[in-house]
Formats: sequence, structure tokens, C-alpha cells
Amino acid sequence: MDPHRALKYARTHRAKFVSELKDFLRFPSVSSRLEHANDLKKCAQWLARHLQGIGLDQVHVIPTRGHPIVYASCRRAPGRPTLIIYGHYDVLPGEPLREWRTPPFTPTLKNENLHARGAADDKGQLFCHVKALESYLKTGRALPVNVKCIFEGEEEIGSPHLTSFIARNRRALRADAAVISDTRMLAPDRPAISYAQRGGLRAELKIKGPPHELHSGNFGGAVLNPLQALCEMIARLHDAHGRVAIPGFYDDVRRWGQEERAFMERTGPTDEQILQDAKIEQGWGESGFSLYERTTIRPALTLNGIVGGHQGPGAKSIIPARALAKLSFRLVPNQDPQKIAQLFRDHIERITPPAVRSSVRTFSAIKPALVERNHLAVRAAAFAYKKGFGALPVFLRSGGSIPVVTTFQEILRCPAVLMGFGLPDDHIHGPNEKFHLPNFYKAIVTSIWYLAVAAKLPIAERMETQAKWQSS
Amino acid sequence: MDPHRALKYARTHRAKFVSELKDFLRFPSVSSRLEHANDLKKCAQWLARHLQGIGLDQVHVIPTRGHPIVYASCRRAPGRPTLIIYGHYDVLPGEPLREWRTPPFTPTLKNENLHARGAADDKGQLFCHVKALESYLKTGRALPVNVKCIFEGEEEIGSPHLTSFIARNRRALRADAAVISDTRMLAPDRPAISYAQRGGLRAELKIKGPPHELHSGNFGGAVLNPLQALCEMIARLHDAHGRVAIPGFYDDVRRWGQEERAFMERTGPTDEQILQDAKIEQGWGESGFSLYERTTIRPALTLNGIVGGHQGPGAKSIIPARALAKLSFRLVPNQDPQKIAQLFRDHIERITPPAVRSSVRTFSAIKPALVERNHLAVRAAAFAYKKGFGALPVFLRSGGSIPVVTTFQEILRCPAVLMGFGLPDDHIHGPNEKFHLPNFYKAIVTSIWYLAVAAKLPIAERMETQAKWQSS
Repeated sequence: MDPHRALKYARTHRAKFVSELKDFLRFPSVSSRLEHANDLKKCAQWLARHLQGIGLDQVHVIPTRGHPIVYASCRRAPGRPTLIIYGHYDVLPGEPLREWRTPPFTPTLKNENLHARGAADDKGQLFCHVKALESYLKTGRALPVNVKCIFEGEEEIGSPHLTSFIARNRRALRADAAVISDTRMLAPDRPAISYAQRGGLRAELKIKGPPHELHSGNFGGAVLNPLQALCEMIARLHDAHGRVAIPGFYDDVRRWGQEERAFMERTGPTDEQILQDAKIEQGWGESGFSLYERTTIRPALTLNGIVGGHQGPGAKSIIPARALAKLSFRLVPNQDPQKIAQLFRDHIERITPPAVRSSVRTFSAIKPALVERNHLAVRAAAFAYKKGFGALPVFLRSGGSIPVVTTFQEILRCPAVLMGFGLPDDHIHGPNEKFHLPNFYKAIVTSIWYLAVAAKLPIAERMETQAKWQSS
Repeated sequence: MDPHRALKYARTHRAKFVSELKDFLRFPSVSSRLEHANDLKKCAQWLARHLQGIGLDQVHVIPTRGHPIVYASCRRAPGRPTLIIYGHYDVLPGEPLREWRTPPFTPTLKNENLHARGAADDKGQLFCHVKALESYLKTGRALPVNVKCIFEGEEEIGSPHLTSFIARNRRALRADAAVISDTRMLAPDRPAISYAQRGGLRAELKIKGPPHELHSGNFGGAVLNPLQALCEMIARLHDAHGRVAIPGFYDDVRRWGQEERAFMERTGPTDEQILQDAKIEQGWGESGFSLYERTTIRPALTLNGIVGGHQGPGAKSIIPARALAKLSFRLVPNQDPQKIAQLFRDHIERITPPAVRSSVRTFSAIKPALVERNHLAVRAAAFAYKKGFGALPVFLRSGGSIPVVTTFQEILRCPAVLMGFGLPDDHIHGPNEKFHLPNFYKAIVTSIWYLAVAAKLPIAERMETQAKWQSS
């Protein structure tokens, strides 16, 4: 199917696309906050109506025990391959609000950037594909391939209900490849395909001391402070060389040969580029590895936050009664999140001082994922990038974790093609998140081309059943 | 002057006294919170009106750059000694509110305890003396001694304006002794006079990393996390034996001889009692010292709180941009707060990892204080306790810091008599603070007797000037 009419439609409707994306970004669809549950519902309904409006069939807002999944399909290309298009409409909280130059849920255009929470992660990237589908459907009422869109509302909280949804509907969701756009490029003119994702595991470490806060004058020097104990335990999670100090933590870490590391050095960002992206002067971490390697083929343990003692303004003379640390692991092949959870628990038990009690909660386990760089569905994506951005993509490893990659690979047995459209300075997860509009336009062109060339992929799909959707 | 009419008045007006104390406790006079400035003002005005009502002269609400000082005097006993009665009407915040069984600013009577923030620290204790004065003034229109009441509103934030107020008005404030009731007894039948206070110093340690939060997936493993760095630095503030690990910290700590330590062992609480008060099973700290010694003749460094990273509900995949620790030192003779501040700064500079920046702010410096146990004004207090509580007081060291003790000693050159009426389980500074009403009644009797016997103290005072009050 000739993409040129679709490309022309996309070129002439840019202003409309941006205006619609702004509407999408206005929903404070913060999945980690219960008080936003209704905002997620409204956002899902808006998205479903939008998908219906552009001409997709079988549009559903599918309830889960958490936030709903928006599903839509277009299966009018018999004998052609089927693509899953995955994205997520949920976002992280806007805090710290005072660091935003514009309100996170009031999308604001500045120069060529659209600022809002979710602009790049992932509403904006998801929307590139939606607008590509629209460009075909509004100019020819058909797509070059069959498409199944899965847009979830719980990615930022570890996709707790997506896997069971996909598992229950595995026959209905069969596909030849899954396209995921939730990663980034190296620069506006340097597109990238992510072929590896780190796995993840979240942990909360709670330390309990006295049953109530104590006056630090009366008891200071005679009572072990649980917040101090927490700090001292956290100090024992890394050694002096930036390595995670949990015994056994590195046992299963795959060592890559010279060929892969040379490929990474050739294609990946330099230390200088990573420092520039982070706006810091000095790197940190395991010696013997580049910063790119440290964030991709090496695991990491990050302290995301501490809750303990007096956090308000002014001073308060207390020994706190308890303290909590929020931590997240990033894992690499062949680390197993469950085994890491156990090693962590064992280590915490070992290093807890006798005068306090500790407890560990682990959740959101995600396995590390790898995609074959030479898969035809991946090569097709490289071709599409060349058309959209005028350059072939580099193949990058990503330090983040997208739980669904493993799910698609393990349950649907289809490869995940990670076509990222974000930029390193998009501030995803931070204040002043943005999406670079030239990337938005080029990504739509890229997606239009991808749908066109994907039509030539070999078909692995068998007969589909018209099974009813099983909510997870 | 015969105290019996005053004693009878006190006995027959208990219910009225409790009702008035409840009114006093209703003001949320939280000095550390700017939004409560008006509540402090109203509380000061209420107290001033109350002091006027009981018959004191020269009642003033004296503004400072912070919260006002309430002053009142009664100088109708020429040739007799002059006592300062010091107290503070400000309180700590009520947080954590969910741990209170009754709202902190809704005084609630339960069995024989009055529950409210400030019930023991210090509104209730201050009020014992006010009610003793009333008992004389309402039955004889005179007091056995001259009295100058100084009730400040900034004790819980380190009395930043009291010293300059006293220094500017040192002639008008001349006295033979200063009575301070802001300490505690060992048990309802075991009164105590505090003859030593630890000094103090507050510090805030701030660590800065990247200019913005970073995504912990993209950067975890390659960027030093300022919150992790803070924990690692805090872990280096104590050694494995519970000693403060700041070089030079113990250099000036006075070593007490066997005589004083034997006195402390005889009079002070046992380890078991201190553990019971704290409701913990196991002590902590410097070996070679009892828990009582660790909290009185040994210095301490307490981590009061940490602000850093994601503290809300749920998880957030970030490397924070900065982290802050709130710390407080308790110092002992002959440590100098300014020298300790410098040692702390030097240590922090030494242990700050090169990949982050640290800054230190120190404030609320208070020198440690000692009162001669055999001073006549102290002996008079022992006699009064025997009358009020039926038992001679034990002489205790206190682990806390009352800035004004040093101020009275150094500027007014008058001894501070620390007659405490609080109990170990009054939960001062914590949730469910209370004042034991039998102690309230007995403390009023004690104060009535103290005023009577203080009349026989030798007079050191010279002619007073009627200088106008200089606000600080």
C-alpha cells in the first residue's frame, strides 16, 4: 500500500495533531496515586473515543483490578502480518511542582518543544503511532497491515495487571511483532532502536526503633536511632568502588565478549555525552565499564527516597520511631528478580543492628529483555527511521525497564521492536518533561513507513479466535 | 509570710486551675511554624491578661523579631530577695497527628492525666508557678519575695531572641535566683532537681547532585545519588562503637571523677528505667558508660530527619537531585558549640565524595550548663519539694538543653534552679503528651513553699533601675 497519501495527510495536519496531543496531556493520569484513579478512567475513555474517531474497530476500555487498558484493532488486511502497537497513557506524578517552569498538566508550547508530564513518556510517543494510523485510515480507509493497539494505564507502577491480561487473551492478541515506543534516540538526527532493556525490582526497607518518637535531649546517645540505622545499612549496600555490596548479587550477571562491547562503544553514547545529558561533571560507579555499560549491561541499585523523622520546615528534637527507604534495582541478563529479592532480604537481615527491627517488601519484578538485532521486524524499523529521520538508527541498549517487552516475548512469542522517539534532554520522570515537536512529526512519518514495510514481513500468525476479552 | 492561706486557696481551686490550664493549652503556639505566628501572639496576650488578672503588676507583651516575651512582676517586698520565674509558652508541632489518640490542641482529661501538646513542656509546668503566685495574691495581696516572670515564645526553636533581650535589660532583670520548671522528676513520688543541662547545636547538611532529578533506569549505576551519598556520610558520623566519629569531637569533654559518677549511679535512673521510659529492649551508645551517663555527661549526635527523593505514596524511579539531613548535637562541659560546628564542617568537607557538593548550616548553639548543688537557692528548692511531694528531691543531670540557664548564669550572674515537675512518661515532644494532674497540684504547693522559704535567701541584688523594656 502506497504511504504517500498518508504522508501528505500527516504533513498537512500537524497543527491538529499537536492540539489533540495537548488534550491528551491535560489528563493528570498519575497511576501511582489513588486519588487520580478517576483521571485515568477519563483519560482512557478520551483515548478510546479518539481511536474510534480515527476509524479503528473494536475499541474497548477494558477494566482491570487497577487502571483500565484501552484496546483497539483494525484487521482488514487478511493474509498480511499483524502488529501490536503498545504504549501507556499513565504518567508519573508532577512533583516536585515548584521545579516546573509551567504546570505539568497544562501543556505549554515553547519554541519547538511541548512541555507537560507525559509529553515524551509515553503519551507523546504513543500518539505518533495513533496519528500514523489516522493518516492511513482518513485517506484510504485501510491499513497496510493488521493492527492491535494495547495502551495500558499502569506502566509507571510496574504493569501489575498487564501480564495476566495478555496471558488470558493470548489467542486474541496473537501478532507477528509488537512495536513499543517508550525509549529515546541519541539526538534529533540520530534515531535509535533499543535492543536491550534492564530488568527491575522495587524494594521498601523499613526500620523500626522505639514505639514512639523520643526526645533527642533526654535519650540521645542511649537509643539507636532507626533513621541513623537505616543510613548505616544503606551505606552497606554499595562498596567503596560503586559496586552493589549484596553478596551473590553479580553471580548471574552475563559477561559480554569483546565483540558486543566494541559494538556498544561504536554505537552508544560516550561518557561525555552521558555526563552532559545528566548535567553533571563527574561519573560514578563500577570501574572497568563505560558509563553506557554501567547503565545497560551492568546492574544498579538506586535509592529513590527516604521517609524518616522530621521533614517539615524548622527543627525538631526527636529520635524518630521508624524510617523507610524506597529502592529500585535495575537488573541485567541473567539475573533473576526473585533470586535478587532473596539475596537482598538475606543481606538486610545480616546487617540489621540488633537494637532495631527491619522489614523488606519487594514488588514490581521485571526480567531483563533482549531483542535480536537482525530480526526482520527490527530491520523494517531501521528502514522506516531512514525514511522518517533521514538516518539509519543506531542500536542501543536501554537502562530502563519496560515490563511488557518480556511479556510479549514470553507469552505471545513475538519480538518487541523498540522504536524510541524521545530525546536525552526530554526530562522524562523529572520536572519540565517535554516532547520535541520535530521528533513528533518525523516519528509519525516513520510510523507510516513502518506500517507500509511491515506488510512484507513473514506471517507467523495462525487463525484468530474471536474470544471475548478477559479482563485481568 | 505564712503560706497556709495560699495553700488553702490552692487546695480549694484545683478545678478552676485545671480549667484555666486547658484554655492555655488550646492555643497551637507552635513556634517553629510561621503560619502559627498569630497563635503565639494570641497565646501571649491571653497569658498576659491572665497574669494581670491574678494581680501581678507591670504586665507586658514585649515584641521581639520573633515571637513575643510575656513579662510580669510583683515587687512589693522591699528588702527581700528577687526571683525570676522563667517558662515558655511555645510548643513543638503536633505531628505526627495520626499517632495522637486525642487532638493535640484539644486538651483532654483521661484518668488523672491532661493530654495536650505543651501539657508538660512547658505550659503546664510554667502554670504551676503562676497558680502559686495567684494563691498568695488572692489571699493576701502580697508575695513573700519579689518576682519577675519571663515567659518566652521561642524556647523550642532555640530562644534566638531571649539572650539579647536579657542582655539589653540586664539591670531591670537583676535577681537573686531564677526558677525554671522545664525538666522532669523520676516518678510521681520522686521529685528531682536538675543540676546539669547538656548544650546543643543544630545542623543541616545538604547534598547536591545533578541539577534535576534523573530517571534511575537511564542513569542508575553511572551517577552518584546525592541521597545515597548523604546516607554514606551519615554512616561516617558514628563509629561501630556508638561514638561520634568526628575527629576532635571528644577532645574537650570533661572526664568526671569516681565521686561524681558514684553520686550519679546512686541518684540517677538505672539502665532498666531508661529502657522502660523509651519502651525499648536494648540500649545503644558509648561503652564504659551507663545509659544515664550517655545521656548526660557524654555528648551525642542525633539525626532528627532526612528530606530526600520520593517521599509520597508509591514508587518513583528517580535519582534525586539533592538531599538534606537535619541533625542535632547535645554537648557537655567543656565542649564549645562554635568549635564543634567547625569540627563538623571540617569532617563533612573531608568525607564529601567528589561527585556531589555538600553544604552545612549550623544554628541554635547552646552552651552546656552546671548549677552548684549546694547553693542556698537550690537547698530552698529541696525543702519546698519535701513539703509539696513529701520527699526530698534527687539531684539529676538532664540530657536536654535549656538555653536560658546559661543566659541567666552568664548575663544576670544568678543561679538557675531547675525544679522539674514532668514525668518520664509525659511524652514531651512526642504524640500524646500529657501532664499528670497530681503533679500539677503538688507542684503548686511546692512553688508556694518555695516562695515562702526563698524569702530568707541572702540578697545579692542592687538598686534597680526603672529602665524601659528594650525589645530584642
